[in-house]
Amino acid sequence: MAQQDPLERLLSLERPNKDLINIMPLQTGSVLTEAARKALIEFGDGYSVCDFCTGRLTDIVNPPVNAFVNDLLPPFLGCDRAILTYGARDGIFMVLHSLTKPGDVIVVDKNRHYSTAVAAERAGVTLVEVPHSGHPEYVVDAEGFQDAIAEHKPSLVLVTYPDGKFGNVPDAARIGEIAREAGVPFLINGAYSVGRMPVKMRELNADFIVGSGHKSMASAGPSGVLGMSNQWTERVLRISATNKKKEVECLGCTLRGVPLVTLMASFPEVQERVKAWDVQVEKAQHFSAAMQQFGFEQLGEKPHRHDMLSFTSNVFYEISQKVRERGYFLYKELKERGIWGIQPGQTKTLKISTYAATDEQLEYVLQSFKDIIAKYS
Amino acid sequence: MAQQDPLERLLSLERPNKDLINIMPLQTGSVLTEAARKALIEFGDGYSVCDFCTGRLTDIVNPPVNAFVNDLLPPFLGCDRAILTYGARDGIFMVLHSLTKPGDVIVVDKNRHYSTAVAAERAGVTLVEVPHSGHPEYVVDAEGFQDAIAEHKPSLVLVTYPDGKFGNVPDAARIGEIAREAGVPFLINGAYSVGRMPVKMRELNADFIVGSGHKSMASAGPSGVLGMSNQWTERVLRISATNKKKEVECLGCTLRGVPLVTLMASFPEVQERVKAWDVQVEKAQHFSAAMQQFGFEQLGEKPHRHDMLSFTSNVFYEISQKVRERGYFLYKELKERGIWGIQPGQTKTLKISTYAATDEQLEYVLQSFKDIIAKYS
Repeated sequence: MAQQDPLERLLSLERPNKDLINIMPLQTGSVLTEAARKALIEFGDGYSVCDFCTGRLTDIVNPPVNAFVNDLLPPFLGCDRAILTYGARDGIFMVLHSLTKPGDVIVVDKNRHYSTAVAAERAGVTLVEVPHSGHPEYVVDAEGFQDAIAEHKPSLVLVTYPDGKFGNVPDAARIGEIAREAGVPFLINGAYSVGRMPVKMRELNADFIVGSGHKSMASAGPSGVLGMSNQWTERVLRISATNKKKEVECLGCTLRGVPLVTLMASFPEVQERVKAWDVQVEKAQHFSAAMQQFGFEQLGEKPHRHDMLSFTSNVFYEISQKVRERGYFLYKELKERGIWGIQPGQTKTLKISTYAATDEQLEYVLQSFKDIIAKYS
Repeated sequence: MAQQDPLERLLSLERPNKDLINIMPLQTGSVLTEAARKALIEFGDGYSVCDFCTGRLTDIVNPPVNAFVNDLLPPFLGCDRAILTYGARDGIFMVLHSLTKPGDVIVVDKNRHYSTAVAAERAGVTLVEVPHSGHPEYVVDAEGFQDAIAEHKPSLVLVTYPDGKFGNVPDAARIGEIAREAGVPFLINGAYSVGRMPVKMRELNADFIVGSGHKSMASAGPSGVLGMSNQWTERVLRISATNKKKEVECLGCTLRGVPLVTLMASFPEVQERVKAWDVQVEKAQHFSAAMQQFGFEQLGEKPHRHDMLSFTSNVFYEISQKVRERGYFLYKELKERGIWGIQPGQTKTLKISTYAATDEQLEYVLQSFKDIIAKYS
């Protein structure tokens, strides 16, 4: 194929994989609902959300941003106040930038997302990690926060609930209890829980919760939510001295565009789907059990309590050492079978989310793994 | 009309005004191109841009984010390096957060956008404003930066090019010269220029330039670009100590979603349209001349050099004092005539952009103003 002019390529951007069975952990929670797909088209133009703005994004009545942010999100998140962000990481940085000063320490779980470390770096704070149990379960024990807090006197405690690598769901409520006893504010990174599983900030004894629209709320990105208790609104949502309708930490308005309408349009369905979370957990456990029968070892908690799964897959790695395509053979074999989500080149460990696929599709994925192993044996 | 359940309203989000003649300054530069509209639908799902990510957003080859950010944007902006942001304000904050420390001073033009003041507040820096000439032209004299810089020793000089209120285009190249002589880095806020008019950072003697996808680049929001000279990349685009593929100030990745593909898909057309900027200026001047014949006073520079126009409109204000709908009569009359963009309640001054409307549509807008005046006389 001749190298195409990049300018020409921009005119026909396509996703060759968009109709395949999707098992990519990043993507399974943010497939748009039908309502979101319609809203996306309706509000595609820049600043379309601001048609009827009177100065504050979260006051807009049409589309009903006001009702969404002030009436619907707080009970959904189990918090007092909610605000829109560009994503979970941006909410974390907003909290760090409001609550800490450079040189402070924050205590986080060892399974934290990379962006938590980067947000800490941007805020100039030091990250202290509560370790996990190591291979194969990588479990973070809530009690580990006790010592870390006592030793480091952090300005914030953060837990990743669940983490994006193993899908482990830590005992956040207990960590919240420990943080509260120590008088340290506690933030839940719910990028992979808010919008997938039932999660209420208050029940987890937390002061803050962040969620991600483009990870788990059936929304286009960049989009996210930050919930907090009343105690912190004055500090995190402080109003500009020169602009009485603008929050400093939001730089005025955040989500001024189409990801906000997809977040809103999907919300009624998202609110419902979290109620069926046990079905998702069952699906994941069933899939994991079948994978283990093939000789794949599931990493992370067992029994597993989330749709994000990691497996060691030595059999695929061994094949990759013998075939011409090396590590890419698996990606290719799966793509030919209509399965999307294993990173090209990945064979040693497989990261899979069972969230978006149906039971039948998951059976087909399992059968495909079986067939591929047989083909190369 | 009975009050509708907010949850139900979320399921059918609509823009009643989407097919009207659009003269709203916020919106005329970001109507999507056809290519962007297709890309929007193709890449609606969350994290779809990341299908083929290998760890860094700006390395992605499919869709061609890499070529767009590294090959196409720098010559377009007249800079050495470009990076993606959520919008102009976010680019400004990234620079402030990298170059200044709390307590520093920055010197800006009096016509600066509100978000510049909020970004400064967020970074803890003090804003010193170079005044404008006041009513009716509100012109910021480049030479005014001389004294302000000498007196306040700022860490950054910023100019709004043009401002969003009057559409005045300051002599940025001269301000850049002054800043350079004083050894102070200089940032151009090009939210209303990048994507509308030809603008090259280097020719304006600037170190940084920010643009807005959802204001002037025919893109969905939130989206923006930040360009800079090589001298500053190490500081502003510093790499995380723990993640070698992630820029700290970007929190890793910024535009991980659909606004990025609309920004890219529209780019070929945007790159072309800036070449026809003189046609836009002519259109604006023609419109302004006609408005002045009706007795509206144009504020800001004359002759005007941008499609953003402000007029005092006492005749409409006087009508508003006599009619039942008060200030809303004008919005209503225009909407009935298929014209969108005058804020509800606004009558004393009109903010209008002629950018998106055709000559015929602008004639129709003028005739409508005339008819409305006649109706109430």
